[in-house]
Formats: sequence, structure tokens, C-alpha cells
Amino acid sequence: MATTAVDVKELPNSYVFVADMPGLKHSEIKVQVENDSVLKISGEKKRDDFASDTEIKYVRVERSAGKFMRKFNLPANANLDGISAACQDGLLTVIVPKNPPPDPHRPRTFDVNVGSSTVPPP
Amino acid sequence: MATTAVDVKELPNSYVFVADMPGLKHSEIKVQVENDSVLKISGEKKRDDFASDTEIKYVRVERSAGKFMRKFNLPANANLDGISAACQDGLLTVIVPKNPPPDPHRPRTFDVNVGSSTVPPP
Repeated sequence: MATTAVDVKELPNSYVFVADMPGLKHSEIKVQVENDSVLKISGEKKRDDFASDTEIKYVRVERSAGKFMRKFNLPANANLDGISAACQDGLLTVIVPKNPPPDPHRPRTFDVNVGSSTVPPP
Repeated sequence: MATTAVDVKELPNSYVFVADMPGLKHSEIKVQVENDSVLKISGEKKRDDFASDTEIKYVRVERSAGKFMRKFNLPANANLDGISAACQDGLLTVIVPKNPPPDPHRPRTFDVNVGSSTVPPP
């Protein structure tokens, strides 16, 4: 399994996931939502398109390669329908908008009827 | 200091250095040769262009950030004048061509003069 570092930040109106994807293209990364609550980022980092070439001798291997998968629980106010993802310069950015907060509890108002008192006369 | 994973491979005619540079552009990476023998790759990974924005709250920080520098001793047959570097999808590739090997020792040829023998007559 390959390692994939991810930063998560919260903005006033969204959650933003930023993941290192050096060498990967849009089409090689899968962004999904599972069970309406889990953001899943997966794919495969390949070391080389021509790794089977016997004329290549690896002198040093530090970069991680292989399949990767990361999962993140999404907060209750995540707007799953508004999720967007983009990849540029080997950096994947997934933006999860927040749903607007529910209306604050409005004070209940009761009509006050002016009329006869219900207190029985003495 | 930020971490930067680098693979080094040897091909028949070149050495190839591949470095993870997610989120970095060409202009943010410096590739140099020091003392005619050391390949130096340096730059800075910035976490955010707007990191000073107080409205951003980091929930998770895994990606490395800051200045980075890697140095590699180059083999004696490296052709320093032919070095090329390119960055695509957050992956830096530096190609160091090899100088052609010196000519194999050719067998020395001597002329054989046909003439009078130097052996004195009896």
C-alpha cells in the first residue's frame, strides 16, 4: 500500500481535504462517498510505466508506490450533493460544502386575549 | 524542513532522478550542480497561499511543509552539460546523461622492417 498524506481544514462554509498525489492524473484518482457519511479517496501510485524494462536499475527507492485508500468521516452538516474535486500539480483538493445551519429556535409567540378573568369571583 | 522522497535509477545511457513535488510549479524548484559533482534539488513546500487567514482551522495536518534540500553525488561519467529537468503533475524528473565510455585499449601495431639481420656473421 502507498502512503498518501492528507490535510483537512475547516472554513466557514466548507471542509477542504488536500492530498498529495504526485505523478497522478485526474483519471487515476477515485473520490467517493460511502454510506452517506464517509469520504473515500483511493487509487494507485505506479512507480513507472516501464517498470518491467530490465535495462532499468533502481539505485535508490524512496517514493511510495502501490494502491492507496483513505477514509474520512464527514460531519453531519456536510452537503454531500455539493462535493467537488480537482487535481492540479499532483495535489488533489476535495471541497465539501456545509449545509446552512438550521434556523435558530424562534421564540414562540402566544396571543393574549383580553377578556373575562377565569378566576371565579369571591 | 519538508521531506521529499526521491527515486534514483540507472539506464544504459543516463541516470534519472524522480522526486515527489506535489503542489509545486517549475519555478518553485531549483536544480543545481555543485563542485562539478553534486546534484542539488531544493525549494519550499508551502502549506497554503492564505495560511494567515484566521478563518481557516486545520483539523488534520499530515503533509510536510517548509524548505527542502536534497544532494546526490554524481558518478564520474555524468555529463553535467547535458542535464535536463522537467516537472509534471507534481513529479520532478532530472535526467543526467552518461558520457560515452573511453575507447577500449586498441592493440598497438608495430611495423616490421624486412632488412639485413643485425646478427653478426660468424
